[in-house]
Amino acid sequence: MQNIILASGSPRRKEIMEQVGIPFTCIPSTKEEIMRDCSPDELVRELSLMKASDVSEQLQGDFIVLGADTVVAVNGKILGKPKSKEHAFEMLSMLQNGVHQVFTGVTVLCKSNDGSQTMRNFSVETKVFVRPMAEQQILDYIETGEPMDKAGAYAIQGLFAPFISGIEGDYYNIVGFPIAAIVKEAMELGIDLLKKD
Amino acid sequence: MQNIILASGSPRRKEIMEQVGIPFTCIPSTKEEIMRDCSPDELVRELSLMKASDVSEQLQGDFIVLGADTVVAVNGKILGKPKSKEHAFEMLSMLQNGVHQVFTGVTVLCKSNDGSQTMRNFSVETKVFVRPMAEQQILDYIETGEPMDKAGAYAIQGLFAPFISGIEGDYYNIVGFPIAAIVKEAMELGIDLLKKD
Repeated sequence: MQNIILASGSPRRKEIMEQVGIPFTCIPSTKEEIMRDCSPDELVRELSLMKASDVSEQLQGDFIVLGADTVVAVNGKILGKPKSKEHAFEMLSMLQNGVHQVFTGVTVLCKSNDGSQTMRNFSVETKVFVRPMAEQQILDYIETGEPMDKAGAYAIQGLFAPFISGIEGDYYNIVGFPIAAIVKEAMELGIDLLKKD
Repeated sequence: MQNIILASGSPRRKEIMEQVGIPFTCIPSTKEEIMRDCSPDELVRELSLMKASDVSEQLQGDFIVLGADTVVAVNGKILGKPKSKEHAFEMLSMLQNGVHQVFTGVTVLCKSNDGSQTMRNFSVETKVFVRPMAEQQILDYIETGEPMDKAGAYAIQGLFAPFISGIEGDYYNIVGFPIAAIVKEAMELGIDLLKKD
C-alpha cells in the first residue's frame, strides 16, 4: 500500500482515520480557503481539491492524498466557521428549531512514481434536525468555546449532541469526514484503504 | 439538582453522559435480562424499566435513575449480543447490504425523599443502512473482537464505521443512549439534566 497523506489538521478527521485503523501521515494544507460564490457541494469539492493538490505538489513518489472540506448550509446560505461570538450566535439562531445540510467535499488523489495521477472528487450531504433552543441555551453553548472552530458553529460529537434530534445520511460526514464514501470511492481507484498489510 | 444515577455499566453510555457534561454516579443493574417474545420497542422499554427499578430499589432519598437497553432488529427479528463468533457472523451477514433498526428503550425514574415517584418510559428508533460486505470483511471484523459485547454485533463508533452508508434518526440512539430524547423527556418531569449548578 502507498503512503496515505491526510491533507488536513482537523483533530476530528485524524480521529476518524485512527478509529477505523487506516495508517496515515498528517500534512495539513496551509493554503488559504477562499469562499467562492457557488453551491455548497461545488464549494466543498473545490476546496478539498485545492487542499489535496497543495499538499501533493510538495511531495515526490508514490502516495495517496486525502483532502476534505466541510460547510453547513441553511436555506441556501453557506455557513463556514464563526468569526466571533456574535457570529456564532447568529449561526446557531438560524440552525435551532429547523433542518440544515452538512456538505463535506473530498478529494482522493493518487500519484505514482512515474508522475501519473488518478483522482476522485465528490461531496456527501447529510441532513441535520436541530431542536428548539432558548436564547440562554445558545449563549451557554457559545461560552463553552466549542463553536469557534467549527463550520456552522457546532460539534455533533460534543456538547451540542442533546440539541440534535436526528440526522439523515452519514454521521461521520457531519463530523467532517464521510469515511464510508471515502473507502468506497478509493476502491474505485483500486485502493483498499482498509487493507491490512 | 438531585443525584443522577446511570443504571448501566456500558462504557458508551457513560461516555455520552460525560460528553454532554451531565454529572452522574454509575450503579449498573445486575438483574438478568430476559428476552421476552414481543416487539423490539416493547422489549427495550420493559428492560430499561427493569434496570432502573432494580437500582432504584437499592437506594434511599432524592434521586433520578436512568435505565437503558438497546437491541437491533432486522426483518422483524431481534438481535441481542452475539453468543459466539459464529453467532456474530450470522448477525452481520443479515445486516450487510440492507437496512435495519436500532431500538433503545429508556426509563427516567425520579424518586423523592417522601417516597413519591414519577417516571418517563419511552423508546427511540433509528434506521441504519449497511453497505454490502464480502465474507472476508465480516470475518476480519469479527477477529478484531469488537462485535462480541454489542447488540447486533457491531459498533458504529468503532471499526464498523466504513460499512455504514447512512442513518435516519438519532446517532446516539445507535450508540445506546438517545441523549436528545432523554433530555427532552426528563424536562417533561421538570428536570433539566443540562442545568449547571
